[in-house]
Amino acid sequence: MKVTILGNNSALPAFGRHPTAQAVSVYGEVLLIDCGEGTQIQMQRFGLRWRSVHHIFISHLHGDHYFGLPGLINSMSLLGRTAPLHLYAPAELKPIIDAILQVADTVLSYPFYFHALQEGVNLLVDDPSFCVTSFPVEHRIQCHGFLVERKTRGRKIVPERCSEYQIPSAYYESLKQGRDYERKDGTVVKNEWVTEDGPAVKRYAYCADTVFTESFLPVIQGADTIYHECTYLEKDAAKATARFHSTATQAATIAKKANAKQLLLGHFSSKYKELEAFREEASAIFPNVFVSIEGTAYEI
Amino acid sequence: MKVTILGNNSALPAFGRHPTAQAVSVYGEVLLIDCGEGTQIQMQRFGLRWRSVHHIFISHLHGDHYFGLPGLINSMSLLGRTAPLHLYAPAELKPIIDAILQVADTVLSYPFYFHALQEGVNLLVDDPSFCVTSFPVEHRIQCHGFLVERKTRGRKIVPERCSEYQIPSAYYESLKQGRDYERKDGTVVKNEWVTEDGPAVKRYAYCADTVFTESFLPVIQGADTIYHECTYLEKDAAKATARFHSTATQAATIAKKANAKQLLLGHFSSKYKELEAFREEASAIFPNVFVSIEGTAYEI
Repeated sequence: MKVTILGNNSALPAFGRHPTAQAVSVYGEVLLIDCGEGTQIQMQRFGLRWRSVHHIFISHLHGDHYFGLPGLINSMSLLGRTAPLHLYAPAELKPIIDAILQVADTVLSYPFYFHALQEGVNLLVDDPSFCVTSFPVEHRIQCHGFLVERKTRGRKIVPERCSEYQIPSAYYESLKQGRDYERKDGTVVKNEWVTEDGPAVKRYAYCADTVFTESFLPVIQGADTIYHECTYLEKDAAKATARFHSTATQAATIAKKANAKQLLLGHFSSKYKELEAFREEASAIFPNVFVSIEGTAYEI
Repeated sequence: MKVTILGNNSALPAFGRHPTAQAVSVYGEVLLIDCGEGTQIQMQRFGLRWRSVHHIFISHLHGDHYFGLPGLINSMSLLGRTAPLHLYAPAELKPIIDAILQVADTVLSYPFYFHALQEGVNLLVDDPSFCVTSFPVEHRIQCHGFLVERKTRGRKIVPERCSEYQIPSAYYESLKQGRDYERKDGTVVKNEWVTEDGPAVKRYAYCADTVFTESFLPVIQGADTIYHECTYLEKDAAKATARFHSTATQAATIAKKANAKQLLLGHFSSKYKELEAFREEASAIFPNVFVSIEGTAYEI
């Protein structure tokens, strides 16, 4: 499970940095979180396939988090996509997208489902392989964070060993669930002889745009990786608070309090050309921190 | 007067090519024609200043011609712009932009004027230095071309010679208009002794997205430079016609019939990786032709 950064900047694109978008890859599925202008081009550039995307999550309706969405939706249709696409976003986005399609006389080539984000903590997707939960953060307008959880797929089959023990593949599902295999003659093949540990459960918390707040700590507690915005450095903390944004120090404080394993920083103001100071500031509080770089895929 | 290509591709971005946008520079003013996704970033990249833009023209409401507009409008506001901005576009765009601003709780920092494009040929802007006229083209939905005319600024003052003849600067405007200067003693300073030819009138015709049609030939007749879309090569002419697009041969035919001096080709389908065949095909009919390249500024 990994997250690829498609845009790490705040509202104004600057220094080659783009507005916010991230792609979380989990078991071959690509979950797109926010979709700033240029996301479709960034995906092409970094080799992420549009057809692996079936779910898009938009945290809030500031343009730097969704102005790339109409283009992506449109391009998918131009390519003749047939697989359904699910969009999770604040309700007010629906009539905007409807109007954009209508004025272009566009009928999408695929089923498109809009899911309005609701207040509170809500399970949005519950797939056999992963689930996604929304949680409220505190911004100037309605804004949601997203917790992506990779589920375990149970024990991992080692096919050679199963052959050795002559276990029919019909029993693999049972082996995945940890059960032993019993032969007709009554002898038992122990599960651990023919399987290995499967992929662990992993949790990635995307904390969207938010002022410093501990309100959502219970939801993200113990996450493997937390992404927390830090539009500003601590010396500009007053500005951060006034604009419902956070500083590197505040992002690190949240990661520490959440007992996260790793922290990703992003959503940098275009007033900063160099980003090393963000890492330095945050690492004083939470050592395992990365300044997110566009095109880089971070293991979760 | 020149036009800088910001995007030369049709709907799907491909091979590093972007959706349509062009910047026409005339006497320091930048007129933005169409505004595909990524235009604000392309402008930064190619050194075009947002604050030189006061007029934006949107040919039609297919997304590849305006999905970069909300981001640009927004960014101008974030930078604290105060100069007015005029947008000329099909009427249906107004409620979309209003909704986008409203859901973000955004009040623009500058006066923003929306001008709905009307049927027929219409003078949109009549500035002392230039004027812009819209004209109908034939596409799947309502679509407009734009004719940009640089006006002459009259005769060009040569300050050293004016000093030599002791002409007060208060008379410069009169000299620009071609008049002689009469001294109090009755002697006459001939206009041509102290001025040179000013910049010539120039005309640039942007023919937007259109099927092959001669309907707008009278408007663009004799233009210095014509931009005509050619989404396809002639071998795909049936596809072009079905989709209300043109071929390189058709674009060249229009340029020839219009007695243009120069032809720019653009809006290439993403099915073509190499573009040289477009130049070859068009040049058989109209020799002075360029395949428009992003970032290149073409003298008009």
